Amino acid sequence: LRKGFPEVVFCQGKTTDQVVEIVQRLCGGNRTVLATRAGREVYEAVRAVFSDAVYSELARTIVVYRGERPQPKGKVLVMSAGTADLPVAEEAAVTAEVMGNHVRRCYDVGVAGIHRLLDKLEMIRWAQVIIVVAGMEGALASVVAGLAEQPVIAVPTSVGYGANFHGLAALLTMLNSCASGIGVVNIDNGFGAAALASAITRMMVGSE
Amino acid sequence: LRKGFPEVVFCQGKTTDQVVEIVQRLCGGNRTVLATRAGREVYEAVRAVFSDAVYSELARTIVVYRGERPQPKGKVLVMSAGTADLPVAEEAAVTAEVMGNHVRRCYDVGVAGIHRLLDKLEMIRWAQVIIVVAGMEGALASVVAGLAEQPVIAVPTSVGYGANFHGLAALLTMLNSCASGIGVVNIDNGFGAAALASAITRMMVGSE
Amino acid sequence: LRKGFPEVVFCQGKTTDQVVEIVQRLCGGNRTVLATRAGREVYEAVRAVFSDAVYSELARTIVVYRGERPQPKGKVLVMSAGTADLPVAEEAAVTAEVMGNHVRRCYDVGVAGIHRLLDKLEMIRWAQVIIVVAGMEGALASVVAGLAEQPVIAVPTSVGYGANFHGLAALLTMLNSCASGIGVVNIDNGFGAAALASAITRMMVGSE
Amino acid sequence: LRKGFPEVVFCQGKTTDQVVEIVQRLCGGNRTVLATRAGREVYEAVRAVFSDAVYSELARTIVVYRGERPQPKGKVLVMSAGTADLPVAEEAAVTAEVMGNHVRRCYDVGVAGIHRLLDKLEMIRWAQVIIVVAGMEGALASVVAGLAEQPVIAVPTSVGYGANFHGLAALLTMLNSCASGIGVVNIDNGFGAAALASAITRMMVGSE
Amino acid sequence: LRKGFPEVVFCQGKTTDQVVEIVQRLCGGNRTVLATRAGREVYEAVRAVFSDAVYSELARTIVVYRGERPQPKGKVLVMSAGTADLPVAEEAAVTAEVMGNHVRRCYDVGVAGIHRLLDKLEMIRWAQVIIVVAGMEGALASVVAGLAEQPVIAVPTSVGYGANFHGLAALLTMLNSCASGIGVVNIDNGFGAAALASAITRMMVGSE
Amino acid sequence: LRKGFPEVVFCQGKTTDQVVEIVQRLCGGNRTVLATRAGREVYEAVRAVFSDAVYSELARTIVVYRGERPQPKGKVLVMSAGTADLPVAEEAAVTAEVMGNHVRRCYDVGVAGIHRLLDKLEMIRWAQVIIVVAGMEGALASVVAGLAEQPVIAVPTSVGYGANFHGLAALLTMLNSCASGIGVVNIDNGFGAAALASAITRMMVGSE
Amino acid sequence: LRKGFPEVVFCQGKTTDQVVEIVQRLCGGNRTVLATRAGREVYEAVRAVFSDAVYSELARTIVVYRGERPQPKGKVLVMSAGTADLPVAEEAAVTAEVMGNHVRRCYDVGVAGIHRLLDKLEMIRWAQVIIVVAGMEGALASVVAGLAEQPVIAVPTSVGYGANFHGLAALLTMLNSCASGIGVVNIDNGFGAAALASAITRMMVGSE
Amino acid sequence: LRKGFPEVVFCQGKTTDQVVEIVQRLCGGNRTVLATRAGREVYEAVRAVFSDAVYSELARTIVVYRGERPQPKGKVLVMSAGTADLPVAEEAAVTAEVMGNHVRRCYDVGVAGIHRLLDKLEMIRWAQVIIVVAGMEGALASVVAGLAEQPVIAVPTSVGYGANFHGLAALLTMLNSCASGIGVVNIDNGFGAAALASAITRMMVGSE
Ligand SMILES: Nc1ncnc2c1ncn2[C@@H]1O[C@H](COP(=O)(O)O)[C@@H](O)[C@H]1O
Ligand SMILES: Nc1ncnc2c1ncn2[C@@H]1O[C@H](COP(=O)(O)O)[C@@H](O)[C@H]1O
Ligand SMILES: Nc1ncnc2c1ncn2[C@@H]1O[C@H](COP(=O)(O)O)[C@@H](O)[C@H]1O
Ligand SMILES: Nc1ncnc2c1ncn2[C@@H]1O[C@H](COP(=O)(O)O)[C@@H](O)[C@H]1O
Ligand SMILES: [Mg+2]
Ligand SMILES: [Mg+2]
Ligand SMILES: [Mg+2]
Ligand SMILES: [Mg+2]
Ligand SMILES: [Mg+2]
Ligand SMILES: [Mg+2]
Ligand SMILES: [Mg+2]
Ligand SMILES: [Mg+2]
Repeated sequence: LRKGFPEVVFCQGKTTDQVVEIVQRLCGGNRTVLATRAGREVYEAVRAVFSDAVYSELARTIVVYRGERPQPKGKVLVMSAGTADLPVAEEAAVTAEVMGNHVRRCYDVGVAGIHRLLDKLEMIRWAQVIIVVAGMEGALASVVAGLAEQPVIAVPTSVGYGANFHGLAALLTMLNSCASGIGVVNIDNGFGAAALASAITRMMVGSE
Repeated sequence: LRKGFPEVVFCQGKTTDQVVEIVQRLCGGNRTVLATRAGREVYEAVRAVFSDAVYSELARTIVVYRGERPQPKGKVLVMSAGTADLPVAEEAAVTAEVMGNHVRRCYDVGVAGIHRLLDKLEMIRWAQVIIVVAGMEGALASVVAGLAEQPVIAVPTSVGYGANFHGLAALLTMLNSCASGIGVVNIDNGFGAAALASAITRMMVGSE
Repeated sequence: LRKGFPEVVFCQGKTTDQVVEIVQRLCGGNRTVLATRAGREVYEAVRAVFSDAVYSELARTIVVYRGERPQPKGKVLVMSAGTADLPVAEEAAVTAEVMGNHVRRCYDVGVAGIHRLLDKLEMIRWAQVIIVVAGMEGALASVVAGLAEQPVIAVPTSVGYGANFHGLAALLTMLNSCASGIGVVNIDNGFGAAALASAITRMMVGSE
Repeated sequence: LRKGFPEVVFCQGKTTDQVVEIVQRLCGGNRTVLATRAGREVYEAVRAVFSDAVYSELARTIVVYRGERPQPKGKVLVMSAGTADLPVAEEAAVTAEVMGNHVRRCYDVGVAGIHRLLDKLEMIRWAQVIIVVAGMEGALASVVAGLAEQPVIAVPTSVGYGANFHGLAALLTMLNSCASGIGVVNIDNGFGAAALASAITRMMVGSE
Repeated sequence: LRKGFPEVVFCQGKTTDQVVEIVQRLCGGNRTVLATRAGREVYEAVRAVFSDAVYSELARTIVVYRGERPQPKGKVLVMSAGTADLPVAEEAAVTAEVMGNHVRRCYDVGVAGIHRLLDKLEMIRWAQVIIVVAGMEGALASVVAGLAEQPVIAVPTSVGYGANFHGLAALLTMLNSCASGIGVVNIDNGFGAAALASAITRMMVGSE
Repeated sequence: LRKGFPEVVFCQGKTTDQVVEIVQRLCGGNRTVLATRAGREVYEAVRAVFSDAVYSELARTIVVYRGERPQPKGKVLVMSAGTADLPVAEEAAVTAEVMGNHVRRCYDVGVAGIHRLLDKLEMIRWAQVIIVVAGMEGALASVVAGLAEQPVIAVPTSVGYGANFHGLAALLTMLNSCASGIGVVNIDNGFGAAALASAITRMMVGSE
Repeated sequence: LRKGFPEVVFCQGKTTDQVVEIVQRLCGGNRTVLATRAGREVYEAVRAVFSDAVYSELARTIVVYRGERPQPKGKVLVMSAGTADLPVAEEAAVTAEVMGNHVRRCYDVGVAGIHRLLDKLEMIRWAQVIIVVAGMEGALASVVAGLAEQPVIAVPTSVGYGANFHGLAALLTMLNSCASGIGVVNIDNGFGAAALASAITRMMVGSE
Repeated sequence: LRKGFPEVVFCQGKTTDQVVEIVQRLCGGNRTVLATRAGREVYEAVRAVFSDAVYSELARTIVVYRGERPQPKGKVLVMSAGTADLPVAEEAAVTAEVMGNHVRRCYDVGVAGIHRLLDKLEMIRWAQVIIVVAGMEGALASVVAGLAEQPVIAVPTSVGYGANFHGLAALLTMLNSCASGIGVVNIDNGFGAAALASAITRMMVGSE
């Protein structure tokens, strides 16, 4: 079951000690462990125990690889609108990689400069699943879903201020998209988008 | 002051009798009268008194022309995303015309089919002010404002359902746009958008 | 492009005449046409023109088949919590069928009677994609996603009253699910769920 | 009246000095005092005066026992979904104990892993009242109330992020539950749940 | 299991035919059936089949008694604030009776006339569980819970206008009560309150 | 105009330097100056210039008396529900005093202990205007307005947590009160309540 | 107590029969009865019993005078912003008259035409209490309170559309006013404003 | 394209290093760079590289002038209601200047003191576009738009507390204005207002 899939620890709201203890317990099972929402001091503590732990400062992820690393099979494209959306986009990208996908990144293609997006049609065609990460008004998901035949997973981010209401604006935009083929996850939930993308690509591989 | 500008009656919440009486009073002043949010029976009653009243079923507007009709000077483009947005778009278009502007219409250019929009670049270049009318997720305003140098007036519509919350989704989208040069008016307020557009084009004419 | 996929008309907010005219135009292109949110009188008018139009009273869908009917390939399971959710569930089921999927239905398995749901594990295992339709508190999506490895598409419905706020409760439940592998669509958007499901199954078939 | 029931101090928004003074005043009456939402420094200050004060770091409660300690009579089960819900669950558990109940704890039984919950049916049968503590989407209350005949008291927690809106998602879930026999208290109000549970078990004992 | 408890049909959102068919199916099991949210025409249709069906116009409930009628054992007091709250209060009262409780009613005791409420202390003392039904600002629950030792079940109603937001005001009031011992159910959910009350009184009887 | 009324400075969002400079400018006009929302360091800085400045730590007010101090004439009663409401209640009380009223305080009379409130009927009768300050569910205003003939000014406070939404619960309660004769001010606006109370008592004195 | 004050019936949500029966009961007490939110058919039914009942179509009020009619003493000014606000303004005006006040009306003085308002300074000076009724953005209350020394009672109305949210916009405006001396009542609550105004003027008369 | 227009960096959510790097890259293009939402330490870092960088502490803007400085042509008036609105007003003023406009400032003209505003009619007449910045209830935009023929750009600010909801009150006020000719931007978005104003004045200059 869930072969090759990592165990996951959500660090937010846990103490450093708790995270280390959980990672230790999970690694005992000889499965790769992914920790999300991990600050640098959490990483330092994990590395003290697992010296091969890999940290991404931007994504705030720790990975401790165990067991056999599966050959990447699915093709996931992660697109994002602005630079402030990068942490969420990278959480998605790292997660998708750990879950056995080829990942390509296509950042900074917000809809206010539509031509930058139109230059990326080939990348869009390459993907089996597309994750679109966007804050502010979150319009990127609609434009991408209009251009692509593949399933699009939309991640609203809390980037913005004022009438953005901490990501509500982008969330509503994505739920109300006039384009079809879009599934939405919670605000800032890059992990959840990649988990859904991986459930999809795993089925494709499984259906081969 | 406000030379050549019509008097305006907002019919919503008024009885037919009240509207007829107000139109009669205003027409006495020899100025053109525009009535918005006017159903067909209101129009019938107005036409009984002013046989030259002009009705738009779609825009739900009545116009009774009086005094000299000014030469159209401003150039206003009205764009809309979906067919359900047409009543609001037409309210804007008729109002802008009555207020002395050339109006061009560019409808059904929602962002899910971005190429239809990109085919309209010439129309966009023609305009002095662009009114963008959109419901659902309202993303059109951002894309247009990214393509155009001119002021963009965004009108969210109440078209949609569920997490659209009667136009709130499109309103928040437009207020949070990552493109600059956008001013937003109330949900479904086609009249208000055209009034602002006309205040802008009038200044341009005034500055000649 | 989108081979074998139907053209779609969203009838809500359109007059019967408009729908008939659009269906006529689209059928000219020799592609199957699916009309959603269609009341009985809309159906009568369409049938007057296309005597082979197929209507589902419950789903409020009309289908006019044209061109070759593709062999069903994807496997989509539609689950729903209560009987009041049936119209949305059927909109999803009919759409998924028209888009070339085998569809199985598993209704009335709300979480208050968890054993009825646990009796359906085989159906769950059969599916490539699972659509979960639920109103009230919408908890079914979390339980199903916990049981299944496959992608789950969650459709909150507006069924409920009081602090349900027309589907907001179920929507928030689904976005905040503690289970992973869930993508959410707009409240009552059965069509959108099926379109996403079909984008997924089509990729699987395409990846064969 | 309220025989054997403790006096309660809600520390949030009070200075350490104020809490100490109130505890001193209340203990004078020879009744047990329970202080909730008490940080460690508040505890240190109370202990300086009452060296037998008992602190729970997790529950953030202080208890100073006075008078005769009543024999525990009611049977209260406290269940919780995730580890981040523990502080609220423990506030409920400690309060229920101080109010004269046997308390059993059943933690980490979120609905995404329904089988862990189904393994606990015996504990469920043991209880007279069940307190269900859950954040995120709060679906646990519905599943438990479906399994149990007893009154269920649901406590939404503020655990979550994004469209959780600080516990609103779980609150709405619990209010809209499709299962019956559930009463809901305020977000994070573990104390209030236990007070209601104790009002219920006290009536049972009283009706003996 | 749930001995003596009725089967329940929630009529809202069901056609008359559907309700009749469900009632017929359930009565076959020789258990009493309670239908809530039933309009008069639904009742007429049920009575055509079950001539002994009992209707309450105010509560909008139908009861078809079957099997042995249990001796009433629990003592439930239903209090309400204003006359517009009566339908919800009666839904609670009828449900509690059908579920085997003695029910007393104490209506029109809103907090703006506190002395009318204080005249009812004896009734309050009689009860094992108190259901408080209130719209507008819903303050009655706090005052009653301050006067009573017993569990209080608070039912906010949608009675009110303007900043009442269809019952939200009363709901928030009840959730934030400064008195303890209160469990809240959904807006207008008289049935749910009685079901919880009955789960409580049943435990008391069970603990005898 | 506004004879005997103080000048007022709202310190929130101003630097200490700005406040000192404004107080100096206003005192030049020989009128009493009241500063609200003033922390201790602001007070220290003001006292360095005006050694007779009077500070209330609880109310967070500074008063610098200048000109003739008017004889107190109006009679204002300030009531509050809980101890956490005291800062707002004191802001109201101090303001009402500086504006020329006799002020009596009646604190800690929340509705969960209705008898404490009923013991205060004489104080209620004494007042010309009653200010009611309450957080949590804010029910005190309704009960007091039911007992009193005089105008009641209700001040919701932000005291509470969870579904209190920073004072929204108490605000809605007060706006929806079933008792009449209540005017509501903004959340935590003790100053505003006293300003309105003083506008009322001033008219009474003026009408003498 | 409340000498000369009418009994009041709030008709909304009551049947015609119920209203007639309540009016009959109250008139027995020889006190004037005021019924608010009364449609024409309710009036017809009341007039069949009390032929001297006085109806205001605009205010939707019925008055049956009984006992001695008190000499009007207080001076209440009712101001309103737009014509759609008239029903609420008249509900306030009629109520204030029945409660023994001289009432002057000053309608159609919205802030978009500030000079019309500035022409009314004498009326403003005449009043002891000013009721300001406004929908849309509700800004009138702030401007009037800035011009007047007297207490201002602000009544937001539900007039507006889109982002007005049924009166929420005007309500928030009035609660956040930068002018002081304003008390706010519920949306559309003309009655409540007049009741508060009368509580104020009655105190003034009482203090003579 | 956008000749003479600056490049813009939005610093919020970026590290000091990122801002410096972006400014360096943009200045290479020989265009003026404007950085908004820049704290003092960001400015120090930029000045270390560009010693001619100009900082406004109040507006939190940095400007590095490059290329030819265009002759100011447009006439933009920035008005604000209270002193706490100054940072947003200055962000608008500085931006409008950098974008080639004459800017006049008219601060502290809140509607509670309407005569201060009426003293500024000449300034209002001078402007081609008016930016109105206001927090609290945001009523200033309506009054100004009623006095002026020119386009008005309304900027709600987050200044306020309680039922202000971080600027929501002012935002709704501005969207619902009874005056026409108003376009609204996001809460606190002084930059956006000036960008729209400049799009307007640029068209006027372009139309010369
Ligand atoms: N960034 C994230 N947001 C939401 N859920 C997450 C995230 N990262 C991990 N999770 C979920 O959290 C679970 C682990 O939670 P826990 O047991 O509390 O550490 C995983 O199985 C994931 O489903
Ligand atoms: N569709 C509309 N939406 C909002 N405001 C409108 C609309 N049409 C007209 N108005 C405004 O309504 C004013 C007339 O209102 P009234 O005096 O009530 O008829 C005009 O001056 C316009 O500013
Ligand atoms: N965690 C809690 N949440 C809400 N209310 C509480 C909590 N703990 C105690 N209380 C209530 O607070 C009251 C004491 O409040 P106070 O007098 O302000 O200390 C108790 O009687 C309880 O009803
Ligand atoms: N606590 C308060 N809440 C709201 N408004 C206040 C408060 N204290 C003073 N004010 C108002 O703030 C005004 C002074 O504001 P400012 O000129 O910004 O200092 C006074 O005239 C009062 O109307
Ligand atoms: Mg697509
Ligand atoms: Mg642009
Ligand atoms: Mg799963
Ligand atoms: Mg149960
Ligand atoms: Mg109690
Ligand atoms: Mg009263
Ligand atoms: Mg004033
Ligand atoms: Mg104007």
